[in-house]
Amino acid sequence: MDSWSRRQLLSVEQALDRWVPAHAPAGLGEAMCYAVLDGGKRLRPLLVLAGLEACAPASPAAWMVDAGMRAACAIELIHAYSLVHDDMPCMDNDVLRRGKPTVHVKYGEAGALLAGDALQTLAFELLTPDNTDIPARVQAQLCSLLARGAGHAGMAGGQAIDLSSVGVQLSLPQLRLMHRCKTGALLETSVQMGAVAALADTRASQALLSYGQALGVAFQVVDDILDVTADSALLGKTAGKDADNNKPTYVSLLGLEGARKEAAALAGQAQQALADSGLVRTLALQALADWVLKRQH
Amino acid sequence: MDSWSRRQLLSVEQALDRWVPAHAPAGLGEAMCYAVLDGGKRLRPLLVLAGLEACAPASPAAWMVDAGMRAACAIELIHAYSLVHDDMPCMDNDVLRRGKPTVHVKYGEAGALLAGDALQTLAFELLTPDNTDIPARVQAQLCSLLARGAGHAGMAGGQAIDLSSVGVQLSLPQLRLMHRCKTGALLETSVQMGAVAALADTRASQALLSYGQALGVAFQVVDDILDVTADSALLGKTAGKDADNNKPTYVSLLGLEGARKEAAALAGQAQQALADSGLVRTLALQALADWVLKRQH
Repeated sequence: MDSWSRRQLLSVEQALDRWVPAHAPAGLGEAMCYAVLDGGKRLRPLLVLAGLEACAPASPAAWMVDAGMRAACAIELIHAYSLVHDDMPCMDNDVLRRGKPTVHVKYGEAGALLAGDALQTLAFELLTPDNTDIPARVQAQLCSLLARGAGHAGMAGGQAIDLSSVGVQLSLPQLRLMHRCKTGALLETSVQMGAVAALADTRASQALLSYGQALGVAFQVVDDILDVTADSALLGKTAGKDADNNKPTYVSLLGLEGARKEAAALAGQAQQALADSGLVRTLALQALADWVLKRQH
Repeated sequence: MDSWSRRQLLSVEQALDRWVPAHAPAGLGEAMCYAVLDGGKRLRPLLVLAGLEACAPASPAAWMVDAGMRAACAIELIHAYSLVHDDMPCMDNDVLRRGKPTVHVKYGEAGALLAGDALQTLAFELLTPDNTDIPARVQAQLCSLLARGAGHAGMAGGQAIDLSSVGVQLSLPQLRLMHRCKTGALLETSVQMGAVAALADTRASQALLSYGQALGVAFQVVDDILDVTADSALLGKTAGKDADNNKPTYVSLLGLEGARKEAAALAGQAQQALADSGLVRTLALQALADWVLKRQH
């Protein structure tokens, strides 16, 4: 990982530590912290901050930096809540996440349900602070983007398709739609939130949208590849689950080599969108696209 | 019910029908509609709209009316999501709600989990529409209020306390804190959202806050009374559950007569806050406080 990412990651961890309410009543705060702190690749926050860096002035206003960090943490909270609920017995029934017992194993099903719910709410609370210099327009746009990325036409919709597709033969276009919603929507949204926090112009926003769309699908293709090639210890979760559950994947549809070619082509599209954008500070976005393609977990 | 409430209720039902996405993929929309449409007292939406009426000009701008209706529906979506998740087997394990099978009985636990999640997200989507005349400041304040009312320091926090209090002897102050969060926070938030949509001044906002706080507790005291005096058919849910679960209630702490006096005193405080406010169009708020005190279900 490059030094830019390491520095940003440290800031994200500190901000999450500050903003996730450890002292929320009756164990709720403890479960929320357990779900979010000390774990995760933080890809979505890094995408927000890399999008911000690409579109913001070289010396951004203090409120812009604050808005970017709030957006970075908000989208990570949405991601974290979705994992907590996904892992529950009525969904994927996973007992291991990032190498630790899942939230419902540790805090019970009711505790996990509530912690997930409260993490989602906290995301919108972070985006609308009291006494802030962040323009109301930016706050409203960030809430709008996050709600659309996480909701029925985005992540939650994708999860519904996923849930109904176990044991069903999906075509490649159907598979793309599912993943575009389930995983892609939040990744796209991350980059766009960075652009909004930076008051990006239309051309820059469009370029980052193209980048985010290609990256979102690439991420899922690589996920499917890792599900068959990596082992559970490295993944930090149970490998081979998709095949066990008879879920369609890019690998089952394209073969391992075909999936690898698809991932490389998509990462290439993401890089091209940056090259065509006219933006100059895109090194972090380039590195993240490269990481998504080459990651081992 | 008075003609103002009947008229507003019709508008709320029409707006929910328009805004809840029936065609969300893979049955998600169907479950969301089932959870929200055609049922419920709609007390929170009516409180938003009554708060708006009290604080808005006699002929409010079109965006103000739109913001009020969006706020009314958003808070009902939050209420609906909380009921869907509360009813699940790992929480209250209720099979009957508003006289119908609960969402998890009808759509399975995973379907109920996802529908609840997506309803929460939709609330924030409604508050931040594209191409709107609603000022960004109002959108951001509405999101902020809703997130704070629904989150770890509001409704979700109250539910965590509730969950941890089964079989535990709470004192009256502890019971008040739990209910202030669990039920009161959203009722308070409803009235405040109406005030924000109406661009209310500080004095009016303060008066509506006092009204909402008293009303919120009154609502819960009456809930506890009805749990022992009403039957399941009229309530539309299983009566007597709190006593069965050995949950502390206002009735168990104050006795039935004591609880009735407490409810009347709180409703009186709510009415007094309106009388002291200097606001002139408070008839709807007065009627709602009266309804909360005298309701039979």
